[in-house]
Amino acid sequence: MRAKDLDSLSAEVIPVKMNFEDRLRRARDDMRKSGIGMMFLTYGANLWYLAGIRRQVPHTTDSNAYGDYLCGAYIGADDGLILLVPRMGSGFYQLEAEKKPWIDEARIINESETPRNVLADIVKQFQLDRRGIALDDRAWIQGALEFEHVLPRSRISLASEIVAPMRMIKDVDEIAVMKKAGQITDAVYGEVLGFLKEGVTEYDVSYEIDHQFAKRGVEYPSFATGVRFTKPGEEQRTDIRRATDRPLKRGHSVTFDFGTCYEGYCSDFGRTAFMGEPPPEFRKIHDLIIQAQGSAIKAMVSGKITAAQLDRVARSMIEKAGYGKGFTHRLGHGIGVTVHEPPFLYPPDETKLASNMTFTVEPSIRLPDSYSCRVEDVVMVTEKGGLPLSNFHKELTLI
Amino acid sequence: MRAKDLDSLSAEVIPVKMNFEDRLRRARDDMRKSGIGMMFLTYGANLWYLAGIRRQVPHTTDSNAYGDYLCGAYIGADDGLILLVPRMGSGFYQLEAEKKPWIDEARIINESETPRNVLADIVKQFQLDRRGIALDDRAWIQGALEFEHVLPRSRISLASEIVAPMRMIKDVDEIAVMKKAGQITDAVYGEVLGFLKEGVTEYDVSYEIDHQFAKRGVEYPSFATGVRFTKPGEEQRTDIRRATDRPLKRGHSVTFDFGTCYEGYCSDFGRTAFMGEPPPEFRKIHDLIIQAQGSAIKAMVSGKITAAQLDRVARSMIEKAGYGKGFTHRLGHGIGVTVHEPPFLYPPDETKLASNMTFTVEPSIRLPDSYSCRVEDVVMVTEKGGLPLSNFHKELTLI
Repeated sequence: MRAKDLDSLSAEVIPVKMNFEDRLRRARDDMRKSGIGMMFLTYGANLWYLAGIRRQVPHTTDSNAYGDYLCGAYIGADDGLILLVPRMGSGFYQLEAEKKPWIDEARIINESETPRNVLADIVKQFQLDRRGIALDDRAWIQGALEFEHVLPRSRISLASEIVAPMRMIKDVDEIAVMKKAGQITDAVYGEVLGFLKEGVTEYDVSYEIDHQFAKRGVEYPSFATGVRFTKPGEEQRTDIRRATDRPLKRGHSVTFDFGTCYEGYCSDFGRTAFMGEPPPEFRKIHDLIIQAQGSAIKAMVSGKITAAQLDRVARSMIEKAGYGKGFTHRLGHGIGVTVHEPPFLYPPDETKLASNMTFTVEPSIRLPDSYSCRVEDVVMVTEKGGLPLSNFHKELTLI
Repeated sequence: MRAKDLDSLSAEVIPVKMNFEDRLRRARDDMRKSGIGMMFLTYGANLWYLAGIRRQVPHTTDSNAYGDYLCGAYIGADDGLILLVPRMGSGFYQLEAEKKPWIDEARIINESETPRNVLADIVKQFQLDRRGIALDDRAWIQGALEFEHVLPRSRISLASEIVAPMRMIKDVDEIAVMKKAGQITDAVYGEVLGFLKEGVTEYDVSYEIDHQFAKRGVEYPSFATGVRFTKPGEEQRTDIRRATDRPLKRGHSVTFDFGTCYEGYCSDFGRTAFMGEPPPEFRKIHDLIIQAQGSAIKAMVSGKITAAQLDRVARSMIEKAGYGKGFTHRLGHGIGVTVHEPPFLYPPDETKLASNMTFTVEPSIRLPDSYSCRVEDVVMVTEKGGLPLSNFHKELTLI
């Protein structure tokens, strides 16, 4: 996609019609080439991407249903796609399977059945002679042991070897949806800035962010919403939530890290605000990260740079200015149906950037037990450099 | 624990001092007896239970950090407990490891290392000759393949074989915390009833429940909060959230299904309300589920009944009254550090109930595309029958 095509997209009329059949066809081509006879995908990102089965809001502690470790999609390399669904909560998956001719069956596993026998019964329906099986990377070992029992001679590989390369390059529909996710995120941030006043806690603000998204009808946060108030002499607290009960006071820097999942695609966004008048050093590091981000975005030219090199572009600027130790994480990560996905903008990843890859670009500086400063946007790689999919201004917001 | 001991517990002074060292000692005894040399636990329920590493609020889509599929705790059968932590977000785990003499090290995995080599380096520190390894049931297959590569001759079993039997029987500290979780849940429900008025949506109400919990300082919901408005002629909608944008109107039954995680332990609670004057049949089915629950609770006598039999106690009453088809799920499930855990109150589970097991008891009746009706409490097994850990009244609330 060229930049001008993207600009002509209307935010109001989003053509959310992912071509799942084409994705399945391409995945099956790759499976056959790789000698894989069947792929097992859990209810998650890969299955949403390939077959359009949406993801339910995950439970916060382990939820267990009978036979759940074998539930998911069984996809034959030649043909056939069977969903195995837990009886408890089966209604959702049966509805998801409707009007999808590429799904043969949503089969419920009942408490009267033995999961291992159900698995044996399902895999019989695929041509597996001398071919391997691919399992979702995050499939549970509890399920994998059953596969090894039922198919002891089948080589096991990871489904990501097939699906991750496909997911890296976004098509026009994916970019359209991600742009809309970015616009909603911009709007929520604008609303939340008005909520900042002395005394509100990090948690209050994170809660308001989630609520603003919910009011706009999006699905769920793409990751746990992060809000941090920091200033010299106050320890940066790490807790089980990414926002604490610390109240906002004059002299606090306020950093945001949040995103949403809209029509199955993620946003991820960051900005910095300040309560009161920031000291000169704070303005300096804020300018520095904006410049580092700008240089990196400019360098996101298709075919011209690797993921690892892009990390260096931003990191070397921050190091040169003497703040390298404060930039403690990778420059960014691929983003799409999940908030973090390959490629990753860090030294081990030598992937060459290509048109229609989408990354977060998120340099930050954290001064030890003092201020924090960050900026983050989702950016698409084009032939002319990076094109941000969120557009909220980057000036330091003073409260 | 006897019923009278529990009654003497003060809600205000909870002795939250889980004896992790004793739990580790007992797990290691079992590992050695079972010929297991090392156990790998992901950051999750089992690791919280055995070693006191708290669980962070989970991300909603896949979050990926370098080497994360091998991150977690490596626990030797003889001694040794090493945490492998992702560099990104390592601060949390380092703090969690502090002041826990039973943890030897929180070792960070860096982008400059190869995960497989890190694994090989860690497992060298344990005595594994001819002994197997136990992996967390939900460990990712991506990690399991690395274990099979590094330890090709080690038999793999599931960590739940060691930990699940321990988790089934709660000690005095666990019961105290779960009772407090029940009290907080009662209080939140009381508050939320006042929020019900014509026009609020299911989602608004679910959001208010989560907010009321958050204001009381609890950790996070124990599972996705469910609120349903139903009446004859309105389809029961299933969506990716467990609450939709349907507005509350006169004639709606209102069913609740929610819980919280307090000090690492879960509650799970259900009641039913009605807007307006319920028809006689609705009062009848409401009385029926209250009676079915009461009979089941009375039957929860240590050593006298199995999980499957307890399901029959409630189900046969509902079937006899002609509503068996409306009771679509198991009677309940074990609950503790996760919302669902063994034993399960359904036909395949022949576990004999024992003192200090804790279960949800949650009969329901759902009339097809019409009213729903449910009640749920967490109940502890004693020598004299079940003792509920939540105490909100069970009369039908009219709005």
